[in-house]
Order: sequence, then C-alpha cells, then structure tokens
Amino acid sequence: VPALQLDGIFAPIPTPFGADGDVDERELAGNVARWAASPLLGLLALGSNGEALLLTEDESDRVVDVVRGAWPRDRMLLVGVGRESTRATMAAAGRAASRGADAVLVRTPSAFRSQMSDAALVSHFTAVADASLVPVLLYNLPGATGFSLTRPVIDALAGHPNIAGMKETSPDLDRLGQFAAVDPAGFRVLSGWAPVLLPALCAGAVGGILAVANVLPAACVTLHEQARAGRLDDALALQRRLTPLAQMVSTVHGVPGLKYALDHVGAYGGPVRPPLCAAPDAARDAIARELARWSATI
Amino acid sequence: VPALQLDGIFAPIPTPFGADGDVDERELAGNVARWAASPLLGLLALGSNGEALLLTEDESDRVVDVVRGAWPRDRMLLVGVGRESTRATMAAAGRAASRGADAVLVRTPSAFRSQMSDAALVSHFTAVADASLVPVLLYNLPGATGFSLTRPVIDALAGHPNIAGMKETSPDLDRLGQFAAVDPAGFRVLSGWAPVLLPALCAGAVGGILAVANVLPAACVTLHEQARAGRLDDALALQRRLTPLAQMVSTVHGVPGLKYALDHVGAYGGPVRPPLCAAPDAARDAIARELARWSATI
Amino acid sequence: VPALQLDGIFAPIPTPFGADGDVDERELAGNVARWAASPLLGLLALGSNGEALLLTEDESDRVVDVVRGAWPRDRMLLVGVGRESTRATMAAAGRAASRGADAVLVRTPSAFRSQMSDAALVSHFTAVADASLVPVLLYNLPGATGFSLTRPVIDALAGHPNIAGMKETSPDLDRLGQFAAVDPAGFRVLSGWAPVLLPALCAGAVGGILAVANVLPAACVTLHEQARAGRLDDALALQRRLTPLAQMVSTVHGVPGLKYALDHVGAYGGPVRPPLCAAPDAARDAIARELARWSATI
Amino acid sequence: VPALQLDGIFAPIPTPFGADGDVDERELAGNVARWAASPLLGLLALGSNGEALLLTEDESDRVVDVVRGAWPRDRMLLVGVGRESTRATMAAAGRAASRGADAVLVRTPSAFRSQMSDAALVSHFTAVADASLVPVLLYNLPGATGFSLTRPVIDALAGHPNIAGMKETSPDLDRLGQFAAVDPAGFRVLSGWAPVLLPALCAGAVGGILAVANVLPAACVTLHEQARAGRLDDALALQRRLTPLAQMVSTVHGVPGLKYALDHVGAYGGPVRPPLCAAPDAARDAIARELARWSATI
Repeated sequence: VPALQLDGIFAPIPTPFGADGDVDERELAGNVARWAASPLLGLLALGSNGEALLLTEDESDRVVDVVRGAWPRDRMLLVGVGRESTRATMAAAGRAASRGADAVLVRTPSAFRSQMSDAALVSHFTAVADASLVPVLLYNLPGATGFSLTRPVIDALAGHPNIAGMKETSPDLDRLGQFAAVDPAGFRVLSGWAPVLLPALCAGAVGGILAVANVLPAACVTLHEQARAGRLDDALALQRRLTPLAQMVSTVHGVPGLKYALDHVGAYGGPVRPPLCAAPDAARDAIARELARWSATI
Repeated sequence: VPALQLDGIFAPIPTPFGADGDVDERELAGNVARWAASPLLGLLALGSNGEALLLTEDESDRVVDVVRGAWPRDRMLLVGVGRESTRATMAAAGRAASRGADAVLVRTPSAFRSQMSDAALVSHFTAVADASLVPVLLYNLPGATGFSLTRPVIDALAGHPNIAGMKETSPDLDRLGQFAAVDPAGFRVLSGWAPVLLPALCAGAVGGILAVANVLPAACVTLHEQARAGRLDDALALQRRLTPLAQMVSTVHGVPGLKYALDHVGAYGGPVRPPLCAAPDAARDAIARELARWSATI
Repeated sequence: VPALQLDGIFAPIPTPFGADGDVDERELAGNVARWAASPLLGLLALGSNGEALLLTEDESDRVVDVVRGAWPRDRMLLVGVGRESTRATMAAAGRAASRGADAVLVRTPSAFRSQMSDAALVSHFTAVADASLVPVLLYNLPGATGFSLTRPVIDALAGHPNIAGMKETSPDLDRLGQFAAVDPAGFRVLSGWAPVLLPALCAGAVGGILAVANVLPAACVTLHEQARAGRLDDALALQRRLTPLAQMVSTVHGVPGLKYALDHVGAYGGPVRPPLCAAPDAARDAIARELARWSATI
Repeated sequence: VPALQLDGIFAPIPTPFGADGDVDERELAGNVARWAASPLLGLLALGSNGEALLLTEDESDRVVDVVRGAWPRDRMLLVGVGRESTRATMAAAGRAASRGADAVLVRTPSAFRSQMSDAALVSHFTAVADASLVPVLLYNLPGATGFSLTRPVIDALAGHPNIAGMKETSPDLDRLGQFAAVDPAGFRVLSGWAPVLLPALCAGAVGGILAVANVLPAACVTLHEQARAGRLDDALALQRRLTPLAQMVSTVHGVPGLKYALDHVGAYGGPVRPPLCAAPDAARDAIARELARWSATI
C-alpha cells in the first residue's frame, strides 16, 4: 500500500443549504469546481465545518457523491465519518469508502466522555480501522469534545497499518509535538488550527486542514511551502497576515463566519442550519474589511 | 391544558441490547413491567442512560413503542428527543408524541458549543416547543456538553406555554436554585443528580430523574416523600445511604455500572454499546457490595 | 477539650482601608462593635473577604488584635492563616492563637497546584494542625485555587484531634454532602456559598461563613434557624429573598461589592486595595436597589 | 534607553535550601558560578522555579543579593517581583532594582481572579511599570493562575515605555503568536514552555525562560541558534531530544524534579520547601535515565 499523501493543505468544506434548508447539491458542486482550480492538496467533506453533525445519514451520503463527482479523481478526498457509536462509525466509513473517499477522518466519540478511558478509545479506533477499506485518520478536537486524546492512545494506535495519522485541532503545540514525534515516518499529523499553522509545521506537523483554506487556498499553500523551505521570516509575515481572517472563520465566528466569507469572495456560502445562527452584522463587517486586504490576491 | 405532574421520581431507563448488539425489545418490556410494580411517578426513555446517542432513528422509535406498550397509559412517560440540529429535534419530538410520550426532554445542542449563544439556544428551544404536540422539558447537562444554560435563557423560556420545566443534571445547586426561582408555579425543575436529591428538593426542585431510581425506586420515592414532609433528619440519613450506589451507577461507572447493577438485582442490564465498555471487575465488586447492603429492601 | 461551637452563622469580615490605603483600625473596631449587636455566632478575620492576601504580615497581626479587642471574648473568632508555605502557615497560626483566635482557617495552598497531591495536602494540613494551639478548620475554595480537596484527603484528616471541620466554598453540594458525611459528629462543615445556604444545611452542613452575613446578619441567622427547625417553605422563601444580594457581594461583584454594601447600610466599607477596583456604578446601583428591598429590616 | 537584550535563553533558577529548611546562600552562589560558565544569556531569580511564593520578603532580598554577587555584572539578571497587591509588587520591584536586577518579571495577580478584569490588570501593570526603576516584563502563567492575559491587555500595555515584553508560560501558541505580533520590535515575547521552544520561536518568540535550561543550558542555547538560522530539521531533532527531560523538570515533576536533576548533574538541588514534596523514586529513576542519554554532553 503506498502511503497516503498528506503533506499539504486541505480545505474542510462547508455543506451548502438552500433557502428551504435542504442541501443544495448544485452549489456544492460549484464550490468544488472552484477549489479544483486552486493548489489545494485535497478536500475534507463532512467535517465540523461541513455541519456534519446536523445532517442525516442520507444527506451525508449525497454530499460525498456530489463532492467526489466534482473533484478530480486523482486528488485527495477525505471524508468525516465519526459517529458516537462504534457500529455507526464503521457503517459510515464503509459507505464513504464505497463512494470514493481516499481516507476517512474519525472524531473522538464524546457523548459519554467520562467513560472514554484510553482503553475505550483504543478499542473504538482499532475496530474502525480494522474494518475500513481506506486509511483512517484520527481526529482530536478537544475544544468541541471537552477532552483530548493522550500520548498513550497515540502510542497504541500509530502502528496500526490502516491508521495513517491524525488531525489535531488545538493551539496546544506541546501535545501536537508529542503526537508528531511518535512515528514521524508512519503517523502523520495535520493541524486543524490555522493561526498556528507555521509553528505547527515547525513542531512536526506535515500539513493542515484549515477552514481559512476554503477562502484563501493559495495563501495557505504558500505558507506551507515557505515553512517547508525554511524561509521563516517570510512565513511568519504571511502567518501574521492570515491569522485575523483565520480566526474569524473558525474560533470567533465559526461556520457562520466561514459561509459569509465564501459568499463575499464569490463562492457559495449561504445559510447555516439551526441551531447555528447567521453571522451578525458586526461579524460580517469585520470579515468584509479583512477580506478587502486580500482582494488583489484572491 | 392541565399542568404536567412532575412532582416525584422518574427513572431514566437504559436500553437493553442482546448479545448481537441489537436492541432487545423483549427484555426492555420486561424491565418496564418491573418498574410498573414500583411507586415511580414515571419513566424517561431515550435519555443519556438510554444510550440514546448510540441508537439509530429507527431503533429510537421502536424503544418508545415498546416502553409505551408496557407502561400503564396513565403513568408519565418522558422521551428524550434532543438532536444536534433543530429540524431533527423537531422531527424526533413529533415522532415521540405520536407514539405516546407525555412530554419530551430536549438536551442542549453542543456540537458547536462556541456558537451556542443565549439567543441561539432560545431560538432552538422555542422552535421545538412551538412545534411539539406535547410539553417540552429543557435538559441542562453541563458535565456532558461542556457548557450550561444560563439564567437569562431560562428567563426567556420559562413563560412559553409549551415548556413545562427542565432537568438539571449537575451538583451545582446555586444554579438549580436560581432556575427553580424563575417561576416556581409554572416552570418546574427536576434534578438529575441523585447524590444531591435532598438538597435539590430543599433548593426548589420538585423531583428527580435519577439513574439509581432504576435500581432502588422505592428508596428514591421515600426520600422524596420525607423531604416533602420536612423530615430532614430521616431524609439526610437516607440520602447518605443512597449516595454511594447513586455515584456508582452514574458519575463513577456510568451506564456500564447501571446495567451491571440491574443484572445484579434481577432486572435485565446486559451489554453496553461500544465505545462504552463493560464495567471492570473492581467496579462490579464494589456495586455488588453496595447492593448487598440493600438486599432486604429491594 | 470541649468541641468548638460551629453550628451557626459567621461573617467573614472585610479589612477597612483609609484614603491612604493603610488599614483603618478605628473603622475596623467600629464595624466589629456593630456586628457585636447582631445575633451572629462569630466572625472570621483575614479570610478572602478580608483581602488577607493583600496584607503584610504586620498588618495581619494588627487586624487580629483590633478585632479581638472589639469582639466579646466569649464569642467565636476565627482567623484565616493560610499561606503558601507550610512553615509560614504554622507561624501565622501561632501568632493568631497567641492573639486570641478561637480557631484558625487554613486555605489549600495552590501556588504549585499541579504538585498538590493528596499526600502533599495531608502532610501540609497535618503539620499545621499538629503545631497549632487552637483548633484548625480546613478551607476548600476551588473557585479561587483551581482545584478541590478530595474525599480521601478529608477521610485522612477528619480524625485529627485538632481539626474541627472545614469551610467549603462552592455551589457543589455533592462534594459538600460527602465531606459532611465523613464524621458528622466530629468533623463539621460550614458552607461559604450563601446562595446555597439552605440546601447546604439540608446536605449536612452545620452553618455558614457568608459575605452577605456582614450586611444582613439577622436574616442569615433566621434562615439558619428555620432550616434547623425543618420549616422548609419559610426557609426557601427567605433563601430566595437573600440570594440576589448574596451574589452581588460575593461571586458577582466580590469584595468591592461587599464594601459598597457596607457603606450603604451605614457600616464602613471604604476602598479596596489594588489590584481590586471599586465597584462600578452599575454594580452600585444594583446593590442599592437590592438593599432598598431590605431597608425596613436592617 | 537601550533596548533590553532578550533574544536568547534564560534559566529560572531554583532557590537552594539546607537541611534546616533555610535558604542555603553558599550553594546558591555555587550554582550561579556554574551557570556563569554556560552560554546562557541570563538568569531569572525568584520565579516559580525559585519557589518565590514560599519565601519571606527578607529571604527574597537575600536571594537577589547573592545571585547578583555571583553572576557577572554584564550579564542579564531578571528578578520575579509579582505579589498579589499592587503596592507590595511596587515595593518588591524597587528592592530588586536597588539590588541589581536588570529587569523585573511581574506575574498576573490571581487571588481575586474573578475580579481581574482587563481594566484591573492594565491598571496593576501600569502602576508597577510607572514606578519601576528597571524595565518590566509581564508574566502570563494561566496553568498556575487559572486565567490568561488577553490580547486587549497586551495591546494596552505593549506601548508603555517601561514594559519591555513578557513571559508566556503555556503551550498555546495561538495566543503567543498574537502577543508577539502586537509590536515585534518593541514588545518581545519569551516562552516559558520548553517543549514548544522551537515552535514558539517560529511563532514570533525571541527566546525562552526554561526550567530545563538550568540542567542543559548549552543544548537550549543551541536549539535557539538553530531556529534563528532556519535550520529546522536539526532544530526539530534537538527539540525532540530535549522535550522528555523538559517535561520531567517542569509540568510533570515540577520543582522537585528540577532539583533532583540538578543534584544528579553535580549542581546543588537539595530539598524543596513544604508543601512541596521530594520527587518520588519513580520520578527520580525516570529523570536519571533521561539524563544518562545526555551524559556525554553535559
């Protein structure tokens, strides 16, 4: 099995909804075509930014079909398949693989977080990886789940032949650095926190899956290349330029901010699904002002 | 509309699984028949203890059908219907009502917790309450979701004609006391934390939805009656007797502990659904020892 | 040794400062004389509300001298003596005892919280209790220290002949209930969280050390008596009346709020010591409005 | 005023105690002489690693005298002077400056953390910086204080002519990156978290104040130089080699671990002051094993 190519930038794409609240497949295909013209290494469908937890199983399957159909077959497509139960996660991974996912991303189950011992987590991920037809990436997102994968969990899972690495969505680079050191050749770490993309790459990450890459894909790819080339001064300057927008479309204004930014640059953002609410006016103004600073380069 | 009768003790019942991992409807009906012989005021199906987040939509519907069929029509049946999206919650509430729920319990959505402003939460619960055919109870469980409903949210929702009250699952009785003071006649608060049942009743709660009530229903009902009668010394002695087991079947050993305890007293507990793991031997021994202290009274 | 009388209400008194920022001993004595006319069981000097962490050792000693001189010899005086080092705590306890403290309150050291194992804490409190000439009360204040004493720590310390009990400053009544159950006859628990005074008494606490008792001592004592008498309806009504002000002079507006309230009722509040800041106008207005509801009874 | 030279590695030195628990000034001087032979840019006396919160004011003054006497006059000496009250901090800063400190480090006051608004913190640090005879460094250590300085606080303080920068002790490099971007030329950021030294330098930090630099000063300085030169592969390899010991002498085993490591390499560590406890045997063994991997280079 050739190793999965993960050294680069992925966009965790949102799921477009129409005015009726249903998935708008046409706009989704249009967005994907737009990203196909960018230097992004790949896409992640059905991640947090895809409002995956707000979709039905049928909607999820359709999203994968549409994205795979519009995204070049030779470019990487990751699909989020984490569910709270192990059996539902395994089923979702199977469906994603059969629909063309190159790898699946499995978030830590968190409904019963106080019962999620290291052993329980190792069992869960192992069962999914054993069954999956495509490589598995672990997904640690402590800000959303309220707890973090630990070094012993990664030590236990990194050697699994069907686990290719993980996405670490956190500004804590002590932890990321430890995870990236477990097996640098065989277990790759991607950062999900754009404001630390540069330092994460310096700490051992090989790439990133970044909300802001939906909006500014070329800038994210350039930053990755500068870091890889050791051009730290240039990279730090670009990181500082990127960070304000990166925050606005993730930690600060979330998916509503991301969708507004996409509308603003001519892609399709559209409405979010409740209980998410549209970005308020002040957020929109701030995003528009920030995007104006990038207008020549988008 | 007559007010919902909530002043008493409810058991949040587990969902039995067979050796194949599927819902065991026969054992579920058997458990319900057992609880029907107890003085419990009502049951909650599809709560956290029901592993609701690990069930499919079809399984959830079947659980309601089976429970309603085995539980006397004139006794209260609450059904958990919270989903991450507002539209899915509304749909689940509609299905539960049509299957015989007397009221529905709606947990706070938490997938996008950083975006769950007070306004977003008020909109979510209002939309569900507007649409529901039966009264709605809010469900605040900060230990699982990582954040809490606030007093302004309760102030905004307590007057809704289709919101009857809430379940507060927390040991923080400052917050519970504030929620219970908002509209004591119209917005009733139930505690979901058995080790504070007595003080919660003293702080304004009208009853409880307690994992331990699955195992020791009569003792929980007696404690409720003693507190109501102002027999504080007796009530404190009983609370202290109940607390160790209450902790073992909730905060300490979770649903696996609860299911083991049910097996031990002759009801059906059975396996949990992964990623939950069976209670380890040390937990089983501790639960068995604690139950031995109650054997004459169960 | 006769047991310490702790079943009642204590006021954790503030330390008055003059316009020059120094301790104003005359106003301190005046305040104490005022409290001497109230039904309070006792006073706590040099607690958190006494801004003890902002005083020098010399100032601390003078505060004890002044309070003891103005407070009847046969009424209880507790003195806060917790320091970060064990040796400094022992020295402070010795000085307080020699100046007339009836008991000393020892807060959990927290400067090196990640190193504060149960064993380290047991050693610390044991060393202080072994050396102290007067009984010791433990002081658990997780909101300020960031961690909590645990049940095993209390189990290990409750039997010490010179440890009389503890102050638990938290709304978590599961924990308080467990601590109060360790040795109800020999290890008494006082609540430091006024909004849960009634439920804390129902959970096994014997009394309270409450910021609001500086302002409304008689109301706090009445609530304690009602709870003791099992008059739960009256007690709950009074608790609900007390809670808003209790929050304003502790969790919400802190010592600045407490000092403003004291000024408002004719005692001496005066300035706080920086980095604390005076209560802002909106806080003052809210406190004044709340106090107006009590004016007939103060 | 020439800018303070902060681009490099500082050791936050421990305070040696003798068998009687008093400060051992002779061993302190001996340690300083040892560090004088290293390439360290400077020392920090009376930081967290100096057990400063466990010392009396007199002991603190003596520590500064001894260190200044043994450390070359032309090399940087930082002194921790943070106290809970503003007036005590100002007094401590004055004494440190008069005893030869080149700059003072002021930790965030945290005794009344719920009252520490941005405005209160800005007032505190401004008052200290206005009064100090030497430049001030802010010290953000959220793991110990339970809250963090915010970007608005740094924005307000970075332009103060007597505030030279800050120490950020956290693995969160999103926050560090934002602080470092406020005024890169005038407000310098030092990392206090050795396991992220390399990524912190990539995120805009100019150097570090690192417990492990007491034990392996040359390795830390080399890592700093490699990062500065853009030799990322070498730097990452060295960071990975350093991280295990760095964790053992800070987050994992704390000052007891650091002191044991110093004893092990032939400097003076000695006992810690209670309530800190000596490193347990398992910790000692782990530290010794880790140090054995460095023995050729120490």
